[in-house]
Amino acid sequence: MLKEKVTFNVPKEKKFSEWYNRIIREADLIDDRYNVKGFIVHKPWSMIAFKEIYRMYEDALERRGHKPVLFPTVIPEENLRREEEHLEGFKAEVFWITHAADRRLEKRLALRPTSETAFYQMYALWIRSFSDLPLKLYQSCTVFRYETKATKPLLRGREFLWIEAHDAFSSQEEAMKQVEEDMEITEEVLHKKLGIPFIFFQRPQWDKFKGAIHTYAADCLMPDGNLNQIASTHYLGENFAKAFGIQFLDREGKRKYVHQTCYGPGIWRIMAALISIHGDNNGLIFPFSVAPVQIVIIPITATSEETSKDVKSQCHAVATRLKENGFRVELDMSEKTPGAKYYYWEMRGVPLRIEIGPIEVKGGYVTLFRRDTRTRRQVPIQQLEAEIKKEGEAILENLRERAEKWLQQSLKEVKSFEELRDAMEEHFGIFKAPFCSIEMDGEPCAQRIREATGAEVRGVRFGVDEKPDPDAKCIVCGRRAGIFAYIAMAY
Amino acid sequence: MLKEKVTFNVPKEKKFSEWYNRIIREADLIDDRYNVKGFIVHKPWSMIAFKEIYRMYEDALERRGHKPVLFPTVIPEENLRREEEHLEGFKAEVFWITHAADRRLEKRLALRPTSETAFYQMYALWIRSFSDLPLKLYQSCTVFRYETKATKPLLRGREFLWIEAHDAFSSQEEAMKQVEEDMEITEEVLHKKLGIPFIFFQRPQWDKFKGAIHTYAADCLMPDGNLNQIASTHYLGENFAKAFGIQFLDREGKRKYVHQTCYGPGIWRIMAALISIHGDNNGLIFPFSVAPVQIVIIPITATSEETSKDVKSQCHAVATRLKENGFRVELDMSEKTPGAKYYYWEMRGVPLRIEIGPIEVKGGYVTLFRRDTRTRRQVPIQQLEAEIKKEGEAILENLRERAEKWLQQSLKEVKSFEELRDAMEEHFGIFKAPFCSIEMDGEPCAQRIREATGAEVRGVRFGVDEKPDPDAKCIVCGRRAGIFAYIAMAY
Repeated sequence: MLKEKVTFNVPKEKKFSEWYNRIIREADLIDDRYNVKGFIVHKPWSMIAFKEIYRMYEDALERRGHKPVLFPTVIPEENLRREEEHLEGFKAEVFWITHAADRRLEKRLALRPTSETAFYQMYALWIRSFSDLPLKLYQSCTVFRYETKATKPLLRGREFLWIEAHDAFSSQEEAMKQVEEDMEITEEVLHKKLGIPFIFFQRPQWDKFKGAIHTYAADCLMPDGNLNQIASTHYLGENFAKAFGIQFLDREGKRKYVHQTCYGPGIWRIMAALISIHGDNNGLIFPFSVAPVQIVIIPITATSEETSKDVKSQCHAVATRLKENGFRVELDMSEKTPGAKYYYWEMRGVPLRIEIGPIEVKGGYVTLFRRDTRTRRQVPIQQLEAEIKKEGEAILENLRERAEKWLQQSLKEVKSFEELRDAMEEHFGIFKAPFCSIEMDGEPCAQRIREATGAEVRGVRFGVDEKPDPDAKCIVCGRRAGIFAYIAMAY
Repeated sequence: MLKEKVTFNVPKEKKFSEWYNRIIREADLIDDRYNVKGFIVHKPWSMIAFKEIYRMYEDALERRGHKPVLFPTVIPEENLRREEEHLEGFKAEVFWITHAADRRLEKRLALRPTSETAFYQMYALWIRSFSDLPLKLYQSCTVFRYETKATKPLLRGREFLWIEAHDAFSSQEEAMKQVEEDMEITEEVLHKKLGIPFIFFQRPQWDKFKGAIHTYAADCLMPDGNLNQIASTHYLGENFAKAFGIQFLDREGKRKYVHQTCYGPGIWRIMAALISIHGDNNGLIFPFSVAPVQIVIIPITATSEETSKDVKSQCHAVATRLKENGFRVELDMSEKTPGAKYYYWEMRGVPLRIEIGPIEVKGGYVTLFRRDTRTRRQVPIQQLEAEIKKEGEAILENLRERAEKWLQQSLKEVKSFEELRDAMEEHFGIFKAPFCSIEMDGEPCAQRIREATGAEVRGVRFGVDEKPDPDAKCIVCGRRAGIFAYIAMAY
């Protein structure tokens, strides 16, 4: 018997930072000992889940008319310079390639921090007439940002995983419909399939993407009270179309600029949300669909050797059968005790565990354990696949409901600046408050909130029609409050 | 009616270079007008197929115990310096990141040309004992090489798609078994699933990967007579283990260095092989499994409006049904003539076409056209899915057989230097010849062949036991010929 016994017991809600920092390493999701600051190694335990999340997202995008492309990782400096505000926004974050072999390059190349300026010069070549529109393309890739703030694996890094979709339309109206579709895609993947509830905001003008007209974004709430932006859509208007000369002939033969949107689901941050929101004090809990191992099979040792043989052969038979049915299965035949194995696979978030001992073999059933509820039940061998599928769905539903409830509980309305300040003392919660404006004239009020509480004005809800009473006042400046703003801590 | 009529008719065998250069652009696989030399844009028509090829390969690797990881795109200079021969091999090809924002970086970072020196410092941390072995990890990514030779899309570029698998074992024996497994994976994916026949060689010592003990590689034959290396495995021995300190305690508690292999299927070059070997004078022919569009549906216009409506609604019904059954389907309702549509989709390599006109609607069948044989037959509506699957398999089988036959015909034995020289006048074919050695002492003979014919000695067959007669002489130096070498033009 190996002595190794893995236990994980960190109170997630109370000590989230410790919980997060330990679980990403102990569950072997990543290794951050790579010798370049801010760059990490994605280990199999996260990569298998990443691949599943990418597959879901790509499927959702493609079903709505997006097609995959892959652009170069490098962008010439001249491209970045074509949209001034955009350059301003990114120039402090760009890595530069200046040499190849022992030669200096004629033009410096940026490692893409985002790919608008790579895509859009090609859009200018590809788009000629209305019949080329809409053009909806995406790529799954990593991007690079020279972050000067402290980096944190899966939340802020110098190279991270994402998807970027770049869409061009013949009118503003169609572009705004895309913003809605992006919200729908976010809802489908994040909420329905991964159980992560979020709020979709229109961001304040001072917090928009550089080069955009408006930014819309999905925030989810992390256990430490910080909002985590997991996807965003930027309505670019004609800004980049003018900078890159992307024009089309409309049905009347008139030359016009395209209207553009870009959508970026932050695959890294989605993983951070997934593990943080669904995990518990014992470690990770993966939704069944994306779990790197969906079912772990653990033999329960028997006293007699003969029975032990039966147990082992039953374990192998079940493992083979489930693998053939397309499940990701691990059979743990190591020399650890069953208890040590339980701890280990629970900590790593495997959603279902099958225990097979002499009693199970004799009875023609298995004991099925659910990681989320930590409950056991007996399942007859012949119903195994069907019951696994059911339990898989039940786990997702339970995780989603738990997360929704928790988000709802964390969402409160405040009526005054004092109330907000008091409420924010715990640095936790999302606060809805009457507010003057998310145009630039509202920034001083947001600034006062930031100074007093550390919290950010994250914007107004998109797609939800809600307005304060006509006589409501901004909780900061006292001017008429035409909107409800949402205020919370944020990464 | 739009006037556009796409025809493609270039004799592939006679004018391969023109055929290749035109088809990759006209079929919209790539765009090489991106404004950094050697970097291209992968358009949807190639990306969808790339995604399917990646999926096949990743599946084949994972079924044999490999797990996915993702390492940083950047590698510090110090890592590259740890294995001298490796650095020598790559330093002329490395792009260097020297700055971030307006700051000079403390250490220069290379864009990975290949990732041995990124992976193996982590392997030194991860591998402790025999129970950590074998360690078999892979990543799907792009790599970067500052090529000074002329670049050619999908064949030689400065950023290209590949997979790299890095495996560590406790003994040379196990490592050599991995070389065999890599050949088996290559066989499964390239030959069985994509219909690309290849020859697996052990490369001459003068042509091995820098830092390896031996290099093994799969070459396929391109229509212009050049061999195209589409995958390679390097047996690294203990070279990198010593450079990076990758040691383990064996079962007896003795500290040992691991034995390593790395395997790299060149996804770009596989695509180049796929389109070049299977295509014909009319354009591309995709195997069914990886085709970006597997079935195109084309309505055949009717004279009466009523019948036209029936045709359209039948086309939509069939398209919906096939999509629901998981096929990639395009319904071409554009205003082009059926003939123009035929040309267009044939040129782009769609393996199956469904034609539906008034006669088909009335008869309750469709006309099914096969791109590879250019033959039509009627298929009753209710048998459509089953027949499509059958035809899909038949297409692959036909493409594979055609390619195999062509490879066999191109493979000849020569008995003298003069015979080789005469045969190579056409710059076409693979020639098997008695040869002295693929150790370094054989290099002068290879050099003479290169000077006289332009051809390369590609090595000896791996996994095939063949030897010349005991008294056979090397066709160049006349020394005893212990081996059969294979000689051909190569990219």
